[in-house]
Amino acid sequence: MQVQQTEAIVLAMFGTTVESALQDLLAIHTAVQAAYPQVQVNIAFTSNQIRRIWHRRATNPDYLAQHPEIPREILQIQGVLATIANLQDRGYVRLVVQPTHIAPAEEFHDLAAYVRGLLSIRTMKPRWRPFQAIGLGRPLLGTYSLKYAYADDIRIAAQALAADAELARRQAAALVYMGHGNHYFPSGGLYLEFAARMRELYPDVLTLIGTVEGFPSLDEVVANLRHHRATRVLLKPFLIVAGDHAINDLVGEEEDSWQSILRREGFAVTAEVKGLGPQVASIFVTHVAEAATEAGVELR
Amino acid sequence: MQVQQTEAIVLAMFGTTVESALQDLLAIHTAVQAAYPQVQVNIAFTSNQIRRIWHRRATNPDYLAQHPEIPREILQIQGVLATIANLQDRGYVRLVVQPTHIAPAEEFHDLAAYVRGLLSIRTMKPRWRPFQAIGLGRPLLGTYSLKYAYADDIRIAAQALAADAELARRQAAALVYMGHGNHYFPSGGLYLEFAARMRELYPDVLTLIGTVEGFPSLDEVVANLRHHRATRVLLKPFLIVAGDHAINDLVGEEEDSWQSILRREGFAVTAEVKGLGPQVASIFVTHVAEAATEAGVELR
Amino acid sequence: MQVQQTEAIVLAMFGTTVESALQDLLAIHTAVQAAYPQVQVNIAFTSNQIRRIWHRRATNPDYLAQHPEIPREILQIQGVLATIANLQDRGYVRLVVQPTHIAPAEEFHDLAAYVRGLLSIRTMKPRWRPFQAIGLGRPLLGTYSLKYAYADDIRIAAQALAADAELARRQAAALVYMGHGNHYFPSGGLYLEFAARMRELYPDVLTLIGTVEGFPSLDEVVANLRHHRATRVLLKPFLIVAGDHAINDLVGEEEDSWQSILRREGFAVTAEVKGLGPQVASIFVTHVAEAATEAGVELR
Amino acid sequence: MQVQQTEAIVLAMFGTTVESALQDLLAIHTAVQAAYPQVQVNIAFTSNQIRRIWHRRATNPDYLAQHPEIPREILQIQGVLATIANLQDRGYVRLVVQPTHIAPAEEFHDLAAYVRGLLSIRTMKPRWRPFQAIGLGRPLLGTYSLKYAYADDIRIAAQALAADAELARRQAAALVYMGHGNHYFPSGGLYLEFAARMRELYPDVLTLIGTVEGFPSLDEVVANLRHHRATRVLLKPFLIVAGDHAINDLVGEEEDSWQSILRREGFAVTAEVKGLGPQVASIFVTHVAEAATEAGVELR
Repeated sequence: MQVQQTEAIVLAMFGTTVESALQDLLAIHTAVQAAYPQVQVNIAFTSNQIRRIWHRRATNPDYLAQHPEIPREILQIQGVLATIANLQDRGYVRLVVQPTHIAPAEEFHDLAAYVRGLLSIRTMKPRWRPFQAIGLGRPLLGTYSLKYAYADDIRIAAQALAADAELARRQAAALVYMGHGNHYFPSGGLYLEFAARMRELYPDVLTLIGTVEGFPSLDEVVANLRHHRATRVLLKPFLIVAGDHAINDLVGEEEDSWQSILRREGFAVTAEVKGLGPQVASIFVTHVAEAATEAGVELR
Repeated sequence: MQVQQTEAIVLAMFGTTVESALQDLLAIHTAVQAAYPQVQVNIAFTSNQIRRIWHRRATNPDYLAQHPEIPREILQIQGVLATIANLQDRGYVRLVVQPTHIAPAEEFHDLAAYVRGLLSIRTMKPRWRPFQAIGLGRPLLGTYSLKYAYADDIRIAAQALAADAELARRQAAALVYMGHGNHYFPSGGLYLEFAARMRELYPDVLTLIGTVEGFPSLDEVVANLRHHRATRVLLKPFLIVAGDHAINDLVGEEEDSWQSILRREGFAVTAEVKGLGPQVASIFVTHVAEAATEAGVELR
Repeated sequence: MQVQQTEAIVLAMFGTTVESALQDLLAIHTAVQAAYPQVQVNIAFTSNQIRRIWHRRATNPDYLAQHPEIPREILQIQGVLATIANLQDRGYVRLVVQPTHIAPAEEFHDLAAYVRGLLSIRTMKPRWRPFQAIGLGRPLLGTYSLKYAYADDIRIAAQALAADAELARRQAAALVYMGHGNHYFPSGGLYLEFAARMRELYPDVLTLIGTVEGFPSLDEVVANLRHHRATRVLLKPFLIVAGDHAINDLVGEEEDSWQSILRREGFAVTAEVKGLGPQVASIFVTHVAEAATEAGVELR
Repeated sequence: MQVQQTEAIVLAMFGTTVESALQDLLAIHTAVQAAYPQVQVNIAFTSNQIRRIWHRRATNPDYLAQHPEIPREILQIQGVLATIANLQDRGYVRLVVQPTHIAPAEEFHDLAAYVRGLLSIRTMKPRWRPFQAIGLGRPLLGTYSLKYAYADDIRIAAQALAADAELARRQAAALVYMGHGNHYFPSGGLYLEFAARMRELYPDVLTLIGTVEGFPSLDEVVANLRHHRATRVLLKPFLIVAGDHAINDLVGEEEDSWQSILRREGFAVTAEVKGLGPQVASIFVTHVAEAATEAGVELR
């Protein structure tokens, strides 16, 4: 008799419409699937707008002809709730939901609210509960957790980015990351602690980080570069995908891109416009495993 | 510019695998759709087992050839969570979930838990909440509600079943309903109050009710029939669909069917093996409208 | 080293302002305390109005002089939330909350909401949770429970009231209970099932029950008395305390009391104006024990 | 007729056992009470251990004789749940709970869980809900809020501490704050953003901040002091009360106090061992007012 699999993994991503950037996301899917070859691993995009764009493309024969590389799963991509619910409908009642976010900010808060809401559904008889267990994985830089200190997650992320420091070192440049940041959650400390860990691990490279929104800003980065008398800068997005922010805000031709600003301020700037996805995919694999263990989901 | 519809209705049914009984359920769908021709009205079956049987049939070419009347929606039927979530994914964020249950017992309790769980999902920014509103309709016989007394719902149901009383009157028979009942929720009072209302509305017919599970039992019905010196009995399922319970427990050939037992006890028995669905469909339409109003869902 | 007790019991009662009726409530406290002599057992009154009256009396020297028998605990009686919270503040973090309600209706629903709300408080570190466990006991006639069928609770209650049946038998009277009832929860079935169990256990006594509010009404009782050609009636409140309802609605001098009505209808009426408290106190002791076991609260 | 007040304020403080430090907390109570002279304002201590010490002192005649200045409210201090519940029992059903925490970390998370749990209690009839509204005030440095950006709260806090900068300026010293910090919530960014705002507002003073637990550490502060070639340091606790941490960890005689370490590192150190309480009390008054408005609690 065949045993029905009841475990599955959902990768919750903000999403991207940039075809090249999509590979950064698919790299995470590939890594998780490789770690759990027998387990159903589904992607969800949390951005309503991005999903709509993919759905429109899915009905556009010209687009499809030009982009045969886009997987069907992306063309029919759903949000978190429907992705989870359709798995549940097929009998997958023990899930791990792994966000591919950098920091525990608004999106992680909202994702946790989804998981908590679904887990709160108590049927009268326990066997009819829609879910037996849902584990929620930590973002890249961790979150509040009694078991996994976020400081450790930050160190692990810094170790995974050794190649960035090495590239900056070879260029004798300061390494400046552009994070997303936000105005609501005080995630700035995570970024600054990450940069401090980078400087500790790679002491011959000045690693700094600024954010598109909130604290710390590019101004603070510039002040710091000056303070350390840096003249050369290697820019890199501190983002999972090299999408819109990377292409426009970081290295766009406009005069308010970070590259334009830093050049005007007199720095010699090069840029590595690649998402972190492939570099940190294995960290998310670990977070999946740890969330599964904590929630009692046995991934086979 | 086309305004995207954000309202939809989900009819939550236990489900049935009996093709003829399916019509009792589809009648409710038809009535609700007719009342709201512009609104998306989807059916969900709450029984995992019944869904699996339909999914198996959907892959069986012989079955499909023999049953061209089965709608595609039934062949691909989903549970409550997936039905709701797939609507949400398509932008339907104001829902009415209308159960087609008789009484507020285990299934209604569980359905309410689903709705409560989904409504509990609070995103940081209100505009990203998955649902703006979900109204939960009352079962046929009502539920605890400050606005809609269950006693009124019982009276309305009794009024809708005038034809049953009339049929029994013409046969000079007592009208004996078979309800489902249960061992956990004390729904017996609802059944007994319903029967009392029937006797009040149709005083020349002795209407009694028993349940397959729990209180009041067939024994109590028999004692009452004797007490009132009834000799003829018209049996009818007090169930939305004339499915398995109606076909086997009520009028089955086996000696423990109600018909067999009552005949052995000396009563002259006839039976009307029809589900209540078509008779009470318009009541569910009203319950949909009232739940929409209470939840602030404007069905257009 | 002295081990700090962390277990306590809260008896949640509607309350009464009638001094004589208070003994019916205190009898339950006495029984529970006797069963658990080492455990803190506190009373809470859920009625805001009743608590206010006791607080006013507590500041009235004349009243206090005339009623030296009223325990200080009653004069300072608090509601459920404060009673629970003050225990928690003193280190009692494993509680059993035992209602002394008859049926699982509005008050039980609300009490369950309190318990659920308090248990939902999740601190970041489990050791700072305000409560380690709260068990909620069943009302007299049970509630939906997978472990304790309400039908069994009804039978146990009927067995505890053998003396009532015996008294009616000696008077050759029908035994008519007055329950409270309500318009929102269909508790009528519980009452009717209770009456059916009484008739089964004590077949030579016609036991009937009506309610002050909702179904079944006194009219239904009268119709049943006539149907069974009863001429004598023994009235008894089906209420924990013989308070206002018992004194006025049941046997009051006014013409709309049950006694007046039944006499006008031609029945010979006697009444036993005693609350059920002392008769069923041991059942609540059992419910406390079972709730403790289910919640993992070890009452020593 | 006298209208019963239904609004009250609860000040949720960690608490302190240091009598002198207590004044820092009472200053906040005084400020809030002065702003709302007609409103009941109660203090709660969240630390179980600190409450127990006060309760022991309350039964020690020697202690009481030596400390006539300790208010009875502190000697009988309760935790958050009991403080709230006892107000509710007396009819205060519209509350503002104002924490006096610095940052939105573990304690704020737990306090929010209490408020959420209490607000989740839904009685069947809305008028019996234990609370009509509970507003939760923001910590000193704000929290995630769509209406009140935490960056603004940080700026307001920095403005309130002008005297600290002025004192450091007069001493030609760097101003070094000791925050509490923690290992679970990434509050480090808030501290660093606060320090950046201080340097912006008071550019002729180098303001830095380190934490007892977590990031940023004293090591990071020392590196920064060296980097800026500072030689003199003014130490001050960035804590509401100058309690145990201030007295021991900051300026204790032991060699691992910050003062000892900094002196060994060659800095000239002075210290201002005062809690922030009195300086920021008016900010908490504002947070009370804003929480009341958001929750619809009309403080008269």
